[in-house]
Amino acid sequence: MRILVVNVNTTETMTHGIGVQAQKAAAPGTEIVALTPRFGAESVEGNFESYLAAVGVMDAVMRYDQPFDAVIQAGYGEHGREGLQELLEVPVVDITEAAASTAMFLGHKYSVVTTLDRAVPLIEDRLKLAGLDARCASVRASGMAVLELETQPERAVEAIVEQAAAAVTNDHAEVICLGCGGMAELEQKVRERTGVPVVDGVAAAVTIAESLVRLGLKTSKVRTYAPPRPKRITGFPLTGL
Amino acid sequence: MRILVVNVNTTETMTHGIGVQAQKAAAPGTEIVALTPRFGAESVEGNFESYLAAVGVMDAVMRYDQPFDAVIQAGYGEHGREGLQELLEVPVVDITEAAASTAMFLGHKYSVVTTLDRAVPLIEDRLKLAGLDARCASVRASGMAVLELETQPERAVEAIVEQAAAAVTNDHAEVICLGCGGMAELEQKVRERTGVPVVDGVAAAVTIAESLVRLGLKTSKVRTYAPPRPKRITGFPLTGL
Amino acid sequence: MRILVVNVNTTETMTHGIGVQAQKAAAPGTEIVALTPRFGAESVEGNFESYLAAVGVMDAVMRYDQPFDAVIQAGYGEHGREGLQELLEVPVVDITEAAASTAMFLGHKYSVVTTLDRAVPLIEDRLKLAGLDARCASVRASGMAVLELETQPERAVEAIVEQAAAAVTNDHAEVICLGCGGMAELEQKVRERTGVPVVDGVAAAVTIAESLVRLGLKTSKVRTYAPPRPKRITGFPLTGL
Amino acid sequence: MRILVVNVNTTETMTHGIGVQAQKAAAPGTEIVALTPRFGAESVEGNFESYLAAVGVMDAVMRYDQPFDAVIQAGYGEHGREGLQELLEVPVVDITEAAASTAMFLGHKYSVVTTLDRAVPLIEDRLKLAGLDARCASVRASGMAVLELETQPERAVEAIVEQAAAAVTNDHAEVICLGCGGMAELEQKVRERTGVPVVDGVAAAVTIAESLVRLGLKTSKVRTYAPPRPKRITGFPLTGL
Amino acid sequence: MRILVVNVNTTETMTHGIGVQAQKAAAPGTEIVALTPRFGAESVEGNFESYLAAVGVMDAVMRYDQPFDAVIQAGYGEHGREGLQELLEVPVVDITEAAASTAMFLGHKYSVVTTLDRAVPLIEDRLKLAGLDARCASVRASGMAVLELETQPERAVEAIVEQAAAAVTNDHAEVICLGCGGMAELEQKVRERTGVPVVDGVAAAVTIAESLVRLGLKTSKVRTYAPPRPKRITGFPLTGL
Amino acid sequence: MRILVVNVNTTETMTHGIGVQAQKAAAPGTEIVALTPRFGAESVEGNFESYLAAVGVMDAVMRYDQPFDAVIQAGYGEHGREGLQELLEVPVVDITEAAASTAMFLGHKYSVVTTLDRAVPLIEDRLKLAGLDARCASVRASGMAVLELETQPERAVEAIVEQAAAAVTNDHAEVICLGCGGMAELEQKVRERTGVPVVDGVAAAVTIAESLVRLGLKTSKVRTYAPPRPKRITGFPLTGL
Repeated sequence: MRILVVNVNTTETMTHGIGVQAQKAAAPGTEIVALTPRFGAESVEGNFESYLAAVGVMDAVMRYDQPFDAVIQAGYGEHGREGLQELLEVPVVDITEAAASTAMFLGHKYSVVTTLDRAVPLIEDRLKLAGLDARCASVRASGMAVLELETQPERAVEAIVEQAAAAVTNDHAEVICLGCGGMAELEQKVRERTGVPVVDGVAAAVTIAESLVRLGLKTSKVRTYAPPRPKRITGFPLTGL
Repeated sequence: MRILVVNVNTTETMTHGIGVQAQKAAAPGTEIVALTPRFGAESVEGNFESYLAAVGVMDAVMRYDQPFDAVIQAGYGEHGREGLQELLEVPVVDITEAAASTAMFLGHKYSVVTTLDRAVPLIEDRLKLAGLDARCASVRASGMAVLELETQPERAVEAIVEQAAAAVTNDHAEVICLGCGGMAELEQKVRERTGVPVVDGVAAAVTIAESLVRLGLKTSKVRTYAPPRPKRITGFPLTGL
Repeated sequence: MRILVVNVNTTETMTHGIGVQAQKAAAPGTEIVALTPRFGAESVEGNFESYLAAVGVMDAVMRYDQPFDAVIQAGYGEHGREGLQELLEVPVVDITEAAASTAMFLGHKYSVVTTLDRAVPLIEDRLKLAGLDARCASVRASGMAVLELETQPERAVEAIVEQAAAAVTNDHAEVICLGCGGMAELEQKVRERTGVPVVDGVAAAVTIAESLVRLGLKTSKVRTYAPPRPKRITGFPLTGL
Repeated sequence: MRILVVNVNTTETMTHGIGVQAQKAAAPGTEIVALTPRFGAESVEGNFESYLAAVGVMDAVMRYDQPFDAVIQAGYGEHGREGLQELLEVPVVDITEAAASTAMFLGHKYSVVTTLDRAVPLIEDRLKLAGLDARCASVRASGMAVLELETQPERAVEAIVEQAAAAVTNDHAEVICLGCGGMAELEQKVRERTGVPVVDGVAAAVTIAESLVRLGLKTSKVRTYAPPRPKRITGFPLTGL
Repeated sequence: MRILVVNVNTTETMTHGIGVQAQKAAAPGTEIVALTPRFGAESVEGNFESYLAAVGVMDAVMRYDQPFDAVIQAGYGEHGREGLQELLEVPVVDITEAAASTAMFLGHKYSVVTTLDRAVPLIEDRLKLAGLDARCASVRASGMAVLELETQPERAVEAIVEQAAAAVTNDHAEVICLGCGGMAELEQKVRERTGVPVVDGVAAAVTIAESLVRLGLKTSKVRTYAPPRPKRITGFPLTGL
Repeated sequence: MRILVVNVNTTETMTHGIGVQAQKAAAPGTEIVALTPRFGAESVEGNFESYLAAVGVMDAVMRYDQPFDAVIQAGYGEHGREGLQELLEVPVVDITEAAASTAMFLGHKYSVVTTLDRAVPLIEDRLKLAGLDARCASVRASGMAVLELETQPERAVEAIVEQAAAAVTNDHAEVICLGCGGMAELEQKVRERTGVPVVDGVAAAVTIAESLVRLGLKTSKVRTYAPPRPKRITGFPLTGL
């Protein structure tokens, strides 16, 4: 089985990291292909960039010319998942939803710890639309920008661990979802400090995508995610569809 | 005062119609500038096309090189409003929200009548995120495609009037929002048949935008709609920002 | 166009202040007529007084013997709007709802800052019924009584500004609605201190009323706000209806 | 123990009927005093009349010059309960809430059957504010006006029974609340036809008021229902407070 | 009238205390019979123990061989009420719901103060399912275990009073529900310290059960609480049903 | 990896069927062990039986004397999952939640088709508590009893397919969850008739349990699902814990 894992930003090192993380979570026999959009922002931290990413991810997936069995959109709180679901029959899994859905099997309430404060409403909105917000205790920001996770990993770990601990103590979270890129040590440190299970969205999404494929389940095409109707698309990377 | 009214699709005749409708609702002294995206779908009827429109509308607004006081995104149930709000300080008004917000001053519950059934969940989602769904009695589809509103106006009017009547009778709607492009006769016919006020989103949005401008109110920049952080944007129509 | 702006209490200086505030927000050609109820409390700060005001406002409007195009009920969190809507065809706008509805176009979440703590549940209830509570971050009390806004303006401004700042910092409000009478300097000071847009309910209501009139929209009469059925009304100021 | 049961309209025969109904439900030793407002509508079927009733009921209670232990507001879906709670320390029970609260001990979902369709939104709003709507399956109108319950009792019974049956069959109600004045035969007929428990609001309110009194529980005075602050009340029946 | 009050745990001294408390609240002529389950935990402080209690309580009630008119399940936040409702026609009242339902007649918001933090989510879940959570300001834990209420009464009172005061001050509760066994002095101390009405669940449940019986109301049998269908039950205390 | 799949009723043929179904969905290397409770009802169709099952399932799991990696509770809408989570560290997956969680990745709204109408409120309540109800279009009953699925398979298939089709057409479901035991042909027939993806709860639960195990995720022990505190448990199958 081949799963496309699409980064939402154009930073190749991040794509590489996500691919490694995904492959680690994958079952034997699952091939992970990590894609980077041709255009868009080097990091996605708001609505403008997220809308670019929505189209950039669709473009990246439609240009991929080999068969694949599922797609993972690897951005926390981003737009675009519904568009992919219209374009494809194979399952599309968003890591924000994958993490929340997984966390809900592990504790009564979960919290998300993310990067900048400005990303919080985007994540809250995504969880609300997905109907996965009822057991969300809080979405907390570490104050670290996406790229700082790479450039200042120690400070980032500390800031994230601190918010995770606050979520458990103050917001009664029983599970933490990491709403930001994967540093290998992050999961372990958060778990050690808080004593609660820690869910990484990319890993969760990989197992969900694999499960859907193995069960032969595909996106429903009867209404919301029916294929786009044939029509004229003008001057756009995706025109060729 | 100058208000940009941006069509979400690339059909110029529609842009023209929207512009006329907007100007009719505008106060003396308000100049309406109707814009068409350079790229995207000729009609927007789903998530894929709506995400293209989100970027197409941002591109059209950013390329406009004259001063303006407010922007109206003239698509029902479409993505993208939050992106524009990040890019601009002037008010941004979405017609879906403008219509709902206006309808709520006129009756206890309102319904939306739109084009195809597949657009219903998009509109429901937009109203939910906007927190304007609590008094929405229903979103109903007429079964007419966007372009058929122009090519088969009589059949379209009939289908829309029928759904509006059903909304009043069965769903207890007391106001009808027209979730589709403006035919001059539509408002009148729906009002005559149902006996309830009929809100056109474009007209409602114009008066709201004018009001915000006159009150000196601008988009809040402290959190969700703060300007995008300076960063590298790759290979995209909007790169020049 | 003539708009009646009805104070909910019997303090004439407040009526005057509200009238000035309304006229300032009005478009050229709009005549504001500010009315004071013949009976009721000198300030409205609770349910008993608010129910008196509901009837006092209806009485004041029904006794007004000139034509008018819209009515604004100028009390924050008060009862009575639905009664006016039954009695009139012209639009009726409540300033609590006008402020909230306007704020929602400017930021992701808004807060209301009002007078006494006991008024908070009334405002919360009004927003809930109006279906405008989903994006309300908080309703906060300054601890100042209504009449103290006039007698101790400096202390009032300080107390209100402080709660507005707390709403932005702690509750993540991106817009502030002023749930109390208008001091000219209040808006400016709150904006300066918090950096967020500030919505005054009276001003917002004026532009909304004007917009509804200009669009030819009236209160729906098919169900909730149908005219009262003809019947015997005993011994009441409003008997003459 | 003495309980005041206050009719919301000025029709004495209705007051008498409500008093009889209340006394039947009362425990030995409970004295029921049925009061009629001095002013207001002969029947309350909408917001205008309901706001008059709110003040009329407060007036009637405040003019009653003997001691009493609790007050019941005997109108379905009416305004005013919160005002009474401010004015009094003894418990105040609204029959809309009493019926719903009682029904929730008897079945998973309940429905209300009331008089005219226009009363439905008022009842829905009252249940929503009271936080008793989550298990409300529906509020249905029989189409009978309040006074027709007295003048056309047979037709009224038939119409109400029919809606009750529809609530059980179509809306999955397991309990019926009678949202209209008490005809002796109504309860029995609805029970026979539907096979579900039938709750009369007046009877339910009597037992709840008695219980609160016996347990020594009074209205909380710390915030929402604190006594009105001392202030000037102008030219109103209630001035003498 | 005879009411069974069933302890959820196997500690006889607690059963005795609950019985005394219930009898004190009962009307003259009401006989309280306090039952202890034959099996289960000496104190119930979590889901495992609560599920045992659900069956233990059903067993205790079914083995009781005299007639009775109502059943009270005297555990805060426990499972099992719905099972009893299927097995019986007489009313079944859960003290968690009785307390909340009663509190809602006394103030705008109520809080629950309970024993251990781990019990909080159980109580929250029970209130949510019962549709009585909309006006719940908070559920707070005193940190005292169930049995410590008996062994360390002074410390328990202090801890509970402290949380009650915090609920009033911080969470805007206007009424306190005691979510733990009754010490005579507890109610009084909480009332003195907070100035708000205090509801004891057992007492509230007794008056509600009495009221339902007096009104001739029984559990609805049309759907959710229909009697169990006849079938083979294997090797269980309750087999004999 | 070894996963225990526990039937909620005592019918061995059903346990066998569930085991086969689970094994079919399992990855290579996953051993499915299907358990039957020692006591309880031959079929579970209501709260009384479901509470017995809650304890029966806990008993069956605690008596199993080999190591295992996860537990699946294979009953639709049943009580008990939270108790297992307290007793175990390994993941516990309820099939009602597994199916809903899976369906939400495949379409905008899902419906559940179950056995008897009386099971509908139980399933609705379970989904509500799990916070998975926001995108549930409906829970529909086929009218077939649990054991009739085995004795009248053809009629059962027909009844279930019919309700699934109604859910898609009338309730706008885009995915169907089968809330009843697995007949091999059921999934296929529902898919053929409705054109939407069909989720079997047991299969979904197996893949979720496998995923949690593979990711090293266990039940959070900090609050709701902390191990039962050491205490005296009297006279119960589970005493030996």
